[in-house]
Parts: sequence; C-alpha cells; structure tokens
Amino acid sequence: MEPRLNILTLGVEDLVTSTNFYSEKFGWKKMKISTDQISFFRLRGMILSLYQREKLAEDATVDADGSGFKGFTMAYNARSKDEVDRIIEKLEKRGVTIVKHPEKVFWGGYSSYVADPDNNLWEIAHNPFLELDEHGIIKG
Amino acid sequence: MEPRLNILTLGVEDLVTSTNFYSEKFGWKKMKISTDQISFFRLRGMILSLYQREKLAEDATVDADGSGFKGFTMAYNARSKDEVDRIIEKLEKRGVTIVKHPEKVFWGGYSSYVADPDNNLWEIAHNPFLELDEHGIIKG
Repeated sequence: MEPRLNILTLGVEDLVTSTNFYSEKFGWKKMKISTDQISFFRLRGMILSLYQREKLAEDATVDADGSGFKGFTMAYNARSKDEVDRIIEKLEKRGVTIVKHPEKVFWGGYSSYVADPDNNLWEIAHNPFLELDEHGIIKG
Repeated sequence: MEPRLNILTLGVEDLVTSTNFYSEKFGWKKMKISTDQISFFRLRGMILSLYQREKLAEDATVDADGSGFKGFTMAYNARSKDEVDRIIEKLEKRGVTIVKHPEKVFWGGYSSYVADPDNNLWEIAHNPFLELDEHGIIKG
C-alpha cells in the first residue's frame, strides 16, 4: 500500500449544518462533485468528506452507536503563533466553539482546539519544529 | 484558513501495537521524528500520527470517555477493482480484521473496510468516477 489517505470522511448528524460550518467558518470551498447526500472539500493531497453518520456506519457494516470522545483529532499547522491567534480570534467571532484557547504546550509548540458541529476536534497549532512548504505541507 | 489538514492523529490504546500495525500490515515507514510517545507516518500531503488515547484527550482538554462507532472513516483509493482484491487478500493473510469484504456498492464503486487495532476503519475502494494522479492523489 502506498502511503496515502485519499478521503477522510466525517459522519455528521446534519449534512447541511456541517457543510455550512466548513464553508462559512473555515472558508473552504465545496467541490462540485458534492451532492445533497455527501459533501467534499479538497484539501492539500486529500479530500475531506461529510456524510450522514448512520449512513456511514451502514456503509462500513458497523453499528452506528457511539458516544463521547471519538479518539481522533485533526491538526491545522499555522505558520506562526500570531497566525494561531488570528485564526482563533476569527473563528470565535464566527461563533465556533473554542475548546482550548491558544497556549504554550509542553512539547514546545503553541496550540489550541476548536470543535465542529459534531464535536470533531481541530487543533490549530504552531509547531516550531515542523517547517511548512509553500503549500502549507509539513516538510521533511 | 488554507484548505489543509496537516496531521490526523489517532488516539490509540497501545502505541507499540498500533505503530506495528501501520508499519507491518500497511507497510508504511515510521518517520524519524517519532518518539516512544508518538508515531508519525508521512502520507501524501499530510501526516498520520498515533498517540495514546487518554493523552490525546488530555491535550485537547476533553473527557477521554468514549465508546462505539467513532463517526469517521479513512479511505484508501485503489487504482482498480483488482487492486482492492489484492490489498484485502494481503491484509487478510497478515491477520488484519476485514470488516467488509470487497463488493460492488450502490454508488457504482467497489468497496471494502478493514479495522486497525483500535477499530479505526479504513475503506479500501475503487471509485471509477475519481481518477488518481501518478502520486495516487484524487484529481479534479
């Protein structure tokens, strides 16, 4: 298997609410291949997809029951501490739930967390040890 | 915010078990910046990271309790139906849990699901409507 993850699909309660969140709060553009059943957002090297949670479980032939911490986080690496602050300030103004305000963390970075409508956690962080290329992809 | 997800972190029960899974079953190479606390795998355009589940919740300042369906899936898009079959056959021989054997699905693709040691779901699929570039990234 090649080292890749083509599509990360988040199982959401309400597709319109979640699609609007990524379109309006994060400012990402929905792909034209999206339908009223599934939304796609092109990210660098991969696609973020939103699909109704029960349908996603059904597709995977697993039980849809589940609660609490989902056991995963997504990270957006900013280019500086200032950029972390600016992003969090903007998201807060847009009504996004700030789970953890930016702070210096033990590993030497500057980190914060926000939640999407389904409580999926996005870490907005600056990691001084990981350099980003011109596309915002971590080098090395 | 630029359209990117730099790091997807999976909160795992046992870091060694999960690291071995991705190294040995998927055949991916752990990055040198990995430590005995966190593992990193470079994927196309992003990084997959493994971190102890309770520590991940603590980092996000959320309760670590959680059970059942995690509400997300990761997809690996193969280049053909045959490739899906070959991957699943290989993973099954390596002892990976096959959650759903490859089958034609309603949207016109050919899809299967496997689980990692923490029951994180990977869809291994061929989508005839999504073309891959030479790096295996979905075009368009």
